[in-house]
Amino acid sequence: MKLTVIGLGLIGGSMAIDLRKAGFAQEITGVDAVAENAEEALRLGIVDRIGDLENSVKGADFVIISIPVDKIVGTLTQVLDLISDQTTVIDVGSTKKAIALAVDSHPRRRNYVAVHPMSGTENSGPGAALQGLFEGKINIICDQEKSGPLYLAFAEKVFQVMGMKLAYMTADEQDHSTAFISHLPHVAAFALANAVLDKEEREIIFDLASGGFTSTVRLAKSSPEMWGPIFQQNKQYVVESLEVYIKHLKAFKKSIENDPEEMMELMRNANRIRGILSGEGDSLVKNEKTIVKLYTK
Amino acid sequence: MKLTVIGLGLIGGSMAIDLRKAGFAQEITGVDAVAENAEEALRLGIVDRIGDLENSVKGADFVIISIPVDKIVGTLTQVLDLISDQTTVIDVGSTKKAIALAVDSHPRRRNYVAVHPMSGTENSGPGAALQGLFEGKINIICDQEKSGPLYLAFAEKVFQVMGMKLAYMTADEQDHSTAFISHLPHVAAFALANAVLDKEEREIIFDLASGGFTSTVRLAKSSPEMWGPIFQQNKQYVVESLEVYIKHLKAFKKSIENDPEEMMELMRNANRIRGILSGEGDSLVKNEKTIVKLYTK
Repeated sequence: MKLTVIGLGLIGGSMAIDLRKAGFAQEITGVDAVAENAEEALRLGIVDRIGDLENSVKGADFVIISIPVDKIVGTLTQVLDLISDQTTVIDVGSTKKAIALAVDSHPRRRNYVAVHPMSGTENSGPGAALQGLFEGKINIICDQEKSGPLYLAFAEKVFQVMGMKLAYMTADEQDHSTAFISHLPHVAAFALANAVLDKEEREIIFDLASGGFTSTVRLAKSSPEMWGPIFQQNKQYVVESLEVYIKHLKAFKKSIENDPEEMMELMRNANRIRGILSGEGDSLVKNEKTIVKLYTK
Repeated sequence: MKLTVIGLGLIGGSMAIDLRKAGFAQEITGVDAVAENAEEALRLGIVDRIGDLENSVKGADFVIISIPVDKIVGTLTQVLDLISDQTTVIDVGSTKKAIALAVDSHPRRRNYVAVHPMSGTENSGPGAALQGLFEGKINIICDQEKSGPLYLAFAEKVFQVMGMKLAYMTADEQDHSTAFISHLPHVAAFALANAVLDKEEREIIFDLASGGFTSTVRLAKSSPEMWGPIFQQNKQYVVESLEVYIKHLKAFKKSIENDPEEMMELMRNANRIRGILSGEGDSLVKNEKTIVKLYTK
């Protein structure tokens, strides 16, 4: 299987590593607008060769577009213009509505499968790519009926090879859900970092590595170049999630000031997240029994 | 050395484990208002015996009070009433001003060392106690001039045995700093959990274990019985930190809506936390070269 990865960062690089290791991708071509990234990916053995977009896409069986979401819109159209009917294309952006809309009437729309693999770290670039990053994680497939059955099946097989669980929803549902469970936590962490940095004058930062700060603020290390376009493309739902969050913060503050019993109740309610995180809660994941590691050597 | 631990939870239990393993505490007595906790600590070998407060405190070389901060005030006074001049007493509460004030004019004030060991997990109870929980972590010693030199030196030695770094500040400085780097992240996580649980009607919780949610919300699993009293005792600074945080969240929201360039700038500013967390930032820690593991067998 000939794989082309456009954008050799954390997500694209990690997918290439897994698909090669599984024996599923035999030839991997990399495309990156930044020459140093392309060279690093080649040096790390993530890709076999680097090339320009046009030549790298033609003849590929599978194309992964893993670049910031504002760049995906134009690049996806360009890729669909170039491919044959033997090629399946995915993008891995964290937003899906704006991207899906841009290619909605493209003659090769059926070759495209809109997905959001829910995994990552706060690091970026080819050096951040990790084997097994997607193992056991969810991949959201959006508007599946707009993908041709062949291309949908092929993409599903790719994700099963990576050990992912699959969830299906509309692009609108995915953008709304993801605003709350991914985009909002990122904004919360960015703002928390800024709030603490704001108080620097009192030498408050004596040890930020203790005290519960580290895990809560981890996402504040994330790349503005990646997250800025996500917040912009999903503006409506990210703003809604922030309004809900600020409402809850204000309610908590008010309860600390005036109503200790209500404060205890708010914490007990928040504690319910423990059961949900440990898997006792609801899940929209449709096929828990995904066949994994089909191609493991 | 005879050690008495009042409150056999995560912090008290972990300290007992470390001090026994280092060979520094030979006899460990446990006191807990909840009989099941006391029995579990005994069964786990964390303490050698369990007893009532009065008999367990008399004759002890070192007393650790590790109970919720609202309970510390009364218990600390009670303990100081009972001890001889050979006993050193600490409490490990996350707030220090209210507690220190309550015993400010006690005749045995000099036997008391007010500290805040900055380590923990979101779990509680004797079963949550961990060996090495404090290794390399900061212990804040407050208002050190109010402790007698003998008792201060003894307490410092205990913390060095546990491998801790020591920081010194006033109780007021500690409460202000801790509001931002520990109490605020906890409130942020409680409110984030509530915000996401709020949207449950749209089945938003399809996979909260992905997408950056888990680490940001980890602290929302924390015990209301422990944290409620902390937020109440440190009300002034926790409310201040929340106001600063909400201000930064609103600024971020506004920038998403109207000013993408400002939004990028806010993220770049937040990214500075990476350098600070990795130890390139300022530190108030006074003695990085603490002698550790004095008593390791």
